[in-house]
Amino acid sequence: MGFETSYLAQNTLFSYLISPISNQKRMLRTYNYNTLSKDEISKLISRNVDSSNEISSAVEAIIEKVKTEGDKALLAYSAQFDRVTLSRLVIEFDEIEQLANEVDEVEQKALEKAFYNIHKFHLSQLKTEEKVETTTGVNCWRELRPIEKVGLYVPGGSAVLPSTFLMLGIPAKIAGCKEIIVCSPPQKNGSVNIYLAYCALLLGIKRIYLIGGAQAIAAMAYGTETITKVDKIFGPGNQYVTKAKTIVQNKTNTAIDMPAGPSEVLVIADETANPAYVAADLLAQAEHGADSQAVLVSTSADLIEKVNLEIENQLRELPRKEIAALAIANSYAVLTSDLQSAMNFSNQYAPEHLIIETDNYEQLIPEIINAGSVFLGHLTPESAGDYASGTNHTLPTSGYARSYSGVSIDSFVKKITFQHISKAGIKNLGPTVEILAELEGLQAHANAVRVRG
Amino acid sequence: MGFETSYLAQNTLFSYLISPISNQKRMLRTYNYNTLSKDEISKLISRNVDSSNEISSAVEAIIEKVKTEGDKALLAYSAQFDRVTLSRLVIEFDEIEQLANEVDEVEQKALEKAFYNIHKFHLSQLKTEEKVETTTGVNCWRELRPIEKVGLYVPGGSAVLPSTFLMLGIPAKIAGCKEIIVCSPPQKNGSVNIYLAYCALLLGIKRIYLIGGAQAIAAMAYGTETITKVDKIFGPGNQYVTKAKTIVQNKTNTAIDMPAGPSEVLVIADETANPAYVAADLLAQAEHGADSQAVLVSTSADLIEKVNLEIENQLRELPRKEIAALAIANSYAVLTSDLQSAMNFSNQYAPEHLIIETDNYEQLIPEIINAGSVFLGHLTPESAGDYASGTNHTLPTSGYARSYSGVSIDSFVKKITFQHISKAGIKNLGPTVEILAELEGLQAHANAVRVRG
Repeated sequence: MGFETSYLAQNTLFSYLISPISNQKRMLRTYNYNTLSKDEISKLISRNVDSSNEISSAVEAIIEKVKTEGDKALLAYSAQFDRVTLSRLVIEFDEIEQLANEVDEVEQKALEKAFYNIHKFHLSQLKTEEKVETTTGVNCWRELRPIEKVGLYVPGGSAVLPSTFLMLGIPAKIAGCKEIIVCSPPQKNGSVNIYLAYCALLLGIKRIYLIGGAQAIAAMAYGTETITKVDKIFGPGNQYVTKAKTIVQNKTNTAIDMPAGPSEVLVIADETANPAYVAADLLAQAEHGADSQAVLVSTSADLIEKVNLEIENQLRELPRKEIAALAIANSYAVLTSDLQSAMNFSNQYAPEHLIIETDNYEQLIPEIINAGSVFLGHLTPESAGDYASGTNHTLPTSGYARSYSGVSIDSFVKKITFQHISKAGIKNLGPTVEILAELEGLQAHANAVRVRG
Repeated sequence: MGFETSYLAQNTLFSYLISPISNQKRMLRTYNYNTLSKDEISKLISRNVDSSNEISSAVEAIIEKVKTEGDKALLAYSAQFDRVTLSRLVIEFDEIEQLANEVDEVEQKALEKAFYNIHKFHLSQLKTEEKVETTTGVNCWRELRPIEKVGLYVPGGSAVLPSTFLMLGIPAKIAGCKEIIVCSPPQKNGSVNIYLAYCALLLGIKRIYLIGGAQAIAAMAYGTETITKVDKIFGPGNQYVTKAKTIVQNKTNTAIDMPAGPSEVLVIADETANPAYVAADLLAQAEHGADSQAVLVSTSADLIEKVNLEIENQLRELPRKEIAALAIANSYAVLTSDLQSAMNFSNQYAPEHLIIETDNYEQLIPEIINAGSVFLGHLTPESAGDYASGTNHTLPTSGYARSYSGVSIDSFVKKITFQHISKAGIKNLGPTVEILAELEGLQAHANAVRVRG
């Protein structure tokens, strides 16, 4: 096993297991699936989910201060981290309306179309369930109830993300959550970004809190003079936000949507794929951040070469090319002998986003086991789902797609089970319950049936 | 505010906020909802979710040892905690079959009936979803995929719980999980309980691991020579098991079903309720453990008095009366002026189990917001749902019913979103995606659409 000199060799994490396929310089380090050992695959698919203890103790301190000092701590952290001296922690509806007016009409229409599609798809997830008579006289069913108080974190450091506001706000509204607390870091002018204001208008959300970072998560988990304590916190964020979510999940009875890590895409492509499309999809992922990962799995060495050339060309034109280049250096390609092996690798990787750029994508659908959201065919870029196809973009990263689903209506409701037993029902079911209670040594359980006999 | 001398005054947690309603000695301390302050209600509904640091560091040490020493640590812990010297960590299918034969026919039939009902209800939760065309040419839908590797923890210290095995094993099987790892503490004879063996037979599960406590959770989260690392861990347990689950949830990429605390019931009853039924339901909860809580909320002072007398009478006959008496001392009654107030209190408490023993229970259903599982009417005891009505008994405790649902098919699957965009679709949706990507400053996202134009 040799070492392949990558075009951007900042990252040597996987260098020791590289099997070079050709001697050409290329953007994506390339591995041959057939020659990879189990151990090498396991290293390739692993993402760094650890965060340093330094972050952990910094976040613990922030949480403790917000818990004890409330709003005062929030204002202090704004000055310290956001470098804004705030006169208020909340933007009210009249100001939201004013700000929203500054969004130009073309952008308004685009936000509205995204809203419409996301709303339509998420509304279809809201379903009533039938009663099931398990035994004559014994009826069981589930009913949905909204989580009453939810907190939405909308990041807004280097980039402001109105799309995330829509992705969290729409299912919260459809579910019928009674209180929706929205926190986003203040802009330099001490106010809120105009696009977030327009989304608030679309969502009928009357208030946005100017709080960012770990302190926002702490505020929603414990409550302050201004912020209501919520039952569940949603939304992506930087390492501090993510760490704060996992800490409050353990320390309070606040639930979180899912653990989060850097964004990632895996593209499965064969010789029918268009290299320019594939490269564009990998770069769209790469521009998110240097820690993003864009993995190409292909049955065609020729395609991998062409994609590498396209990446090189397209990268030059990107305003965020430094970030994207770092992410590409952190990424790789895997050459497989058939699509089944490509799918196997993908299922082991469990990508947040899976794009299948093959003519025969339909045959692969039943083989997909682990993925957050799947984009099928040559004309379905991930960015469509990031913004406006209708699916949610809050998805499990770092291999959590093995056990977690993305955000949906399900994330904002509880499914409560109900049962009703009639006179006939208790007669039919009672003896079973008595026998089972007795064999577990729980006499009072048996007695609760016996007294009704 | 005075102090009420409770019949069993071991527990003085809430003594400072007691408003005595009568001077009679009674089993359940009783509060008048109308005179309780917001702060007093908040104290009444709070459960002690903290566990001591002592437990935490003991569990951390167990996890670390299992992680580094594997099976060797598991065998050592069996000797130390279960006081059994094991010659093997796993019971194979031929032995399971032999043990299952020892279950008598009446018990077999009872387990089968429970199996049938639980299976029928959970199967009804497995649904395919329709495609939604959000924009012409843009189709979105969700498909279910099983979580591949799941770990089921079936407690078996003081009591062995075949019912829990069924409640976890049936949805895992219906979901189609490929590997189902079952851990349960070894019995004194170094083997597995015969009822668990019979359940394994019903479930088609071919192997049971003789591992209990925090070490079982660690083994499933990290894997050992014998145990496969799983994607998600399910099941109740003592404080050590519960603590281990929350620790591995943070330290590894293993998901857990839900955080867990002591079991609890809240009974809403009016003057139409039968005091003997209500008392039996409260005692069925109380016999679980001294830290269980059984709360009665009633519009009738007379009913509360009668329930107290019934508790006193029924308690005497119970084999687990010491435990139940301690739990009753840890419990209380709330008198409200109407059923709406009773429901308000219940929603604030967010009980794991809610029993509504009123003639007009149907009117209350829409008012239920926070509860794990609901039992309707005079003939629907919680113990029916604990064993055999068909609903799941793995439910959110400690107020987690505000944000979590009980275990269901949903707990064993991921819902993966899919999208396909046609030529017409990308034409219709593309401009929207480009505009939104640009306003978020993500040019490569816009480009992924543009190259396809």
